[in-house]
Amino acid sequence: MNPRKRLRTMIEQPDHIIQAVGAHNALGAKLVEQNGFDAVWASGFEISTAHAKPDANILTMFEFLEAARQMADATHLPIIADCDTGFGNVNNVIRMVRDYEKAGIAAVCIEDKVFPKMNSFIPGYQSLAPKDEFAAKIRAAKDTQHDPDFVVIARVESLIAGHGMEETLARASAYEEAGADLILIHSKQKDPREIFEFCRHWNSNTPLVIVPTTYPSITLPEMVEHNIKVVIYANQALRAAVKAMNHVLSLLKSSGSLLAIQDDLSPMDQLFEIQGMKEMIQQEERYRKQEVR
Amino acid sequence: MNPRKRLRTMIEQPDHIIQAVGAHNALGAKLVEQNGFDAVWASGFEISTAHAKPDANILTMFEFLEAARQMADATHLPIIADCDTGFGNVNNVIRMVRDYEKAGIAAVCIEDKVFPKMNSFIPGYQSLAPKDEFAAKIRAAKDTQHDPDFVVIARVESLIAGHGMEETLARASAYEEAGADLILIHSKQKDPREIFEFCRHWNSNTPLVIVPTTYPSITLPEMVEHNIKVVIYANQALRAAVKAMNHVLSLLKSSGSLLAIQDDLSPMDQLFEIQGMKEMIQQEERYRKQEVR
Amino acid sequence: MNPRKRLRTMIEQPDHIIQAVGAHNALGAKLVEQNGFDAVWASGFEISTAHAKPDANILTMFEFLEAARQMADATHLPIIADCDTGFGNVNNVIRMVRDYEKAGIAAVCIEDKVFPKMNSFIPGYQSLAPKDEFAAKIRAAKDTQHDPDFVVIARVESLIAGHGMEETLARASAYEEAGADLILIHSKQKDPREIFEFCRHWNSNTPLVIVPTTYPSITLPEMVEHNIKVVIYANQALRAAVKAMNHVLSLLKSSGSLLAIQDDLSPMDQLFEIQGMKEMIQQEERYRKQEVR
Amino acid sequence: MNPRKRLRTMIEQPDHIIQAVGAHNALGAKLVEQNGFDAVWASGFEISTAHAKPDANILTMFEFLEAARQMADATHLPIIADCDTGFGNVNNVIRMVRDYEKAGIAAVCIEDKVFPKMNSFIPGYQSLAPKDEFAAKIRAAKDTQHDPDFVVIARVESLIAGHGMEETLARASAYEEAGADLILIHSKQKDPREIFEFCRHWNSNTPLVIVPTTYPSITLPEMVEHNIKVVIYANQALRAAVKAMNHVLSLLKSSGSLLAIQDDLSPMDQLFEIQGMKEMIQQEERYRKQEVR
Repeated sequence: MNPRKRLRTMIEQPDHIIQAVGAHNALGAKLVEQNGFDAVWASGFEISTAHAKPDANILTMFEFLEAARQMADATHLPIIADCDTGFGNVNNVIRMVRDYEKAGIAAVCIEDKVFPKMNSFIPGYQSLAPKDEFAAKIRAAKDTQHDPDFVVIARVESLIAGHGMEETLARASAYEEAGADLILIHSKQKDPREIFEFCRHWNSNTPLVIVPTTYPSITLPEMVEHNIKVVIYANQALRAAVKAMNHVLSLLKSSGSLLAIQDDLSPMDQLFEIQGMKEMIQQEERYRKQEVR
Repeated sequence: MNPRKRLRTMIEQPDHIIQAVGAHNALGAKLVEQNGFDAVWASGFEISTAHAKPDANILTMFEFLEAARQMADATHLPIIADCDTGFGNVNNVIRMVRDYEKAGIAAVCIEDKVFPKMNSFIPGYQSLAPKDEFAAKIRAAKDTQHDPDFVVIARVESLIAGHGMEETLARASAYEEAGADLILIHSKQKDPREIFEFCRHWNSNTPLVIVPTTYPSITLPEMVEHNIKVVIYANQALRAAVKAMNHVLSLLKSSGSLLAIQDDLSPMDQLFEIQGMKEMIQQEERYRKQEVR
Repeated sequence: MNPRKRLRTMIEQPDHIIQAVGAHNALGAKLVEQNGFDAVWASGFEISTAHAKPDANILTMFEFLEAARQMADATHLPIIADCDTGFGNVNNVIRMVRDYEKAGIAAVCIEDKVFPKMNSFIPGYQSLAPKDEFAAKIRAAKDTQHDPDFVVIARVESLIAGHGMEETLARASAYEEAGADLILIHSKQKDPREIFEFCRHWNSNTPLVIVPTTYPSITLPEMVEHNIKVVIYANQALRAAVKAMNHVLSLLKSSGSLLAIQDDLSPMDQLFEIQGMKEMIQQEERYRKQEVR
Repeated sequence: MNPRKRLRTMIEQPDHIIQAVGAHNALGAKLVEQNGFDAVWASGFEISTAHAKPDANILTMFEFLEAARQMADATHLPIIADCDTGFGNVNNVIRMVRDYEKAGIAAVCIEDKVFPKMNSFIPGYQSLAPKDEFAAKIRAAKDTQHDPDFVVIARVESLIAGHGMEETLARASAYEEAGADLILIHSKQKDPREIFEFCRHWNSNTPLVIVPTTYPSITLPEMVEHNIKVVIYANQALRAAVKAMNHVLSLLKSSGSLLAIQDDLSPMDQLFEIQGMKEMIQQEERYRKQEVR
């Protein structure tokens, strides 16, 4: 089953919460797969951090797409690509869907802010796009896709922008009506109460997605109870990596000794395994033998 | 002082061992800088792993160069780029030097194996190039550079390939004579005795570089004693990242709870700091104020 | 019908000579399509010239692939990608087939020279790879493809390298046996006699491809008569462009007047049409109207 | 003298009109140089056409930058890069200046429209940015550059947008005050009267740039008389190429004969010369001889 079909199947499967984990390159995507998760979130925040650039559309679509393409090439999991606001207007969204679909991406997620977007956790820069304008982007995305299994997620930033529950629900409904396959309802509260309130009001069959970066206390049973279909652990793997890298670099610098950090390292063999080195050598051997038949 | 000048100055400074650390993207380069190291090693092994591709010239020069360029753009440290065999013959080396120099790279390192190279720790695939052919590559690299501070490192794979000390010294001398600024003497032994033996025989002013991945017991005083000028910790930061990512992913999957991993994560603010988010917001504010004068 | 299926169908269609024309970007591919040809040749020679780099593997696979990908995105014609020697050994060929197939390319063509290849019309640099080694590459390419309609062309450089008819036929047979879908027999003679001789000796069902750059006198009826299935006009469009550009640039410089060259120019509207500007404006209008319902 | 210094010198040289010609790749830039022009215009319109994409920011900064970088690598002429609106807000402009300067570009040109821009010759889509907002972008660009010779051009689209002479002059003055090195005054009239009127009112030392695509009757003496410093022939070479390519493709298709088009083609040797093939072979020979000393 191809990744898009698999994502569709999981969406339609009752009682299954899809757990997606953020990545910024092929390696990260592969670790997400090896640890048994359902999907990879090609995170704009992670990809920006990997480039040491602000998560504010300083990188271009081309760079985000390249990262997502590499993830899709390295894993069998569906890739859900964080596409910010769609990188411009409705014409940019149309190019985006064409290119992401061709790159083997399973789903794209766009949000109802204005370009260039600002990371949702930076207060004071969260201007929303007019509702109809964003609904048109959703409609354009759905009209553009070729594979019926391709998924378009509408990310509602209305709570982030402080617009209240009524406006938020109206936006979510408008995007649903425009054809969104999933609604991502985002919140920056320290607990999930705001999200739960939204869920209780959401009388619709269109499934919900959450990103509990700021409210980590939420549990899987609570998600089931509130009809949440997809949870995105958006950046935790990168944040673990940064903490560990800083730890070993600091220890290596102060001690001047590789021995001091050996226990903190994955063995070389594990990295060769991620590279697919063994498969490559086997294939080379196979063809080399054929040469000398 | 620009990164190339700084690298030259450090090379000429007596009693200073240059400590370079491997990275595969701008984030990694920035962490190396923040932890007080002298230089960044744009590691072919790390970049290959990040792409989940074997370290065997499966990636092209273009992809290695893009990674190195992003590192150079994100840090003030000199970038030492791992360029495998130079990506082909002498003509490819010439393109390589032009492009890496234009990208702001401080040093390139090429090795005396045949294209496509195989990672040095994979036994049985370590064919060396003829000595004169590789010396011609070094000569071409030196003839091509514009900035006199640009550094060309000749990496000797003769011990890796099992050719013995005499051949190894002859190769190192030939590359020195061809103009190499530094000689990287590589070993895959579990301890540094082989390296020390080479150092004792090396009667020359051309400084030496080592990569103690397999012999981590070596100490900085031993390097001083053996006249080693540069030590490259080639892949430890990535290996720490992979171990940490696997740990939190595994824990997150089994526990189903973000709370279980919170202590293993860098805070979001630290990642925004790596992104340069604060500087960006300040600059935006500054220009916004000017708009409404 | 997708481009791969269309190429397969044309190959199997009796009495039809497939006429492919060289291009180096999406614009060129589109002009080939608009003028009624059957396929686009993503020419290594053209792409190298567009980059002002020698046709000698100075550019990397990544750059050739990007050019071919853009062509595939811009036209409905099948793209036949000139992949030189496969960019290295059998492992590189495997990466190549994976990436070109994912990019929507219909066919790849690899040649039996050593990496880095030299353009076939430069005498003295035409070393052939061992026959078995190249046959292994063909086998690897065929084993790697997913879509059964994907086409692998083996390009025989034996006449170019001066090896005589017997060796040339032996090589072609070996590559056919290894699974090549088509055999490209290349010649740099000023007339097609050598090619005709090869064709007369070729007792096989595997169809033949020619590139009559140096023997332009060959006619379509002669191709039919000699059982040639595909003719590649490899670089004529680019050479016409260069001649025309030099003409108008020279005239503009000497006259100092745009009026002097107006008759030599396509109108702006034609370029907007190639861009797809009208379709974009229509789509934008359509979604804009939906916004204000 | 490096390209930036050369551009500065030409700007300061009295009685010299700088003639820049549009290109979309390294080949085009090289032909501009070989025909004796002063500078290359890395045209957004041309680069978009080469990708068969609308000239409306469908391509990203990354793709425009790659094209400009290749031009800068292939020629000694200064490259003036068409950067549309700066690809977003002031933060995007800052990234842009950093990256274009690092890529060896001599000048960037940004225009006072809103992102995503639309080609100036498409009526009905020419919304201008607020004057102060665009002036802030100019100020940010000038603050960001490192090399004092780097040139920032402010392109005034006010006449294109139908805003009248007074508003247009006010905008030009505001951008001059913000630090623009040159003012590009754009017009889509069929004759140069509007441009001449602007020039007569322009009482300032900041030199003017024009792009006479729609008013080709303008002469060099008229430019001198109206104090115009730079003329950009923005897309004529590409339009000549398209006309010629269509001609030979059509003739080749209808005649089925390469002989019918031979006179319309540049010889292969001229393309090898553009590639730099001879220099490459000479350098390879030189190093090969050194190998066998």
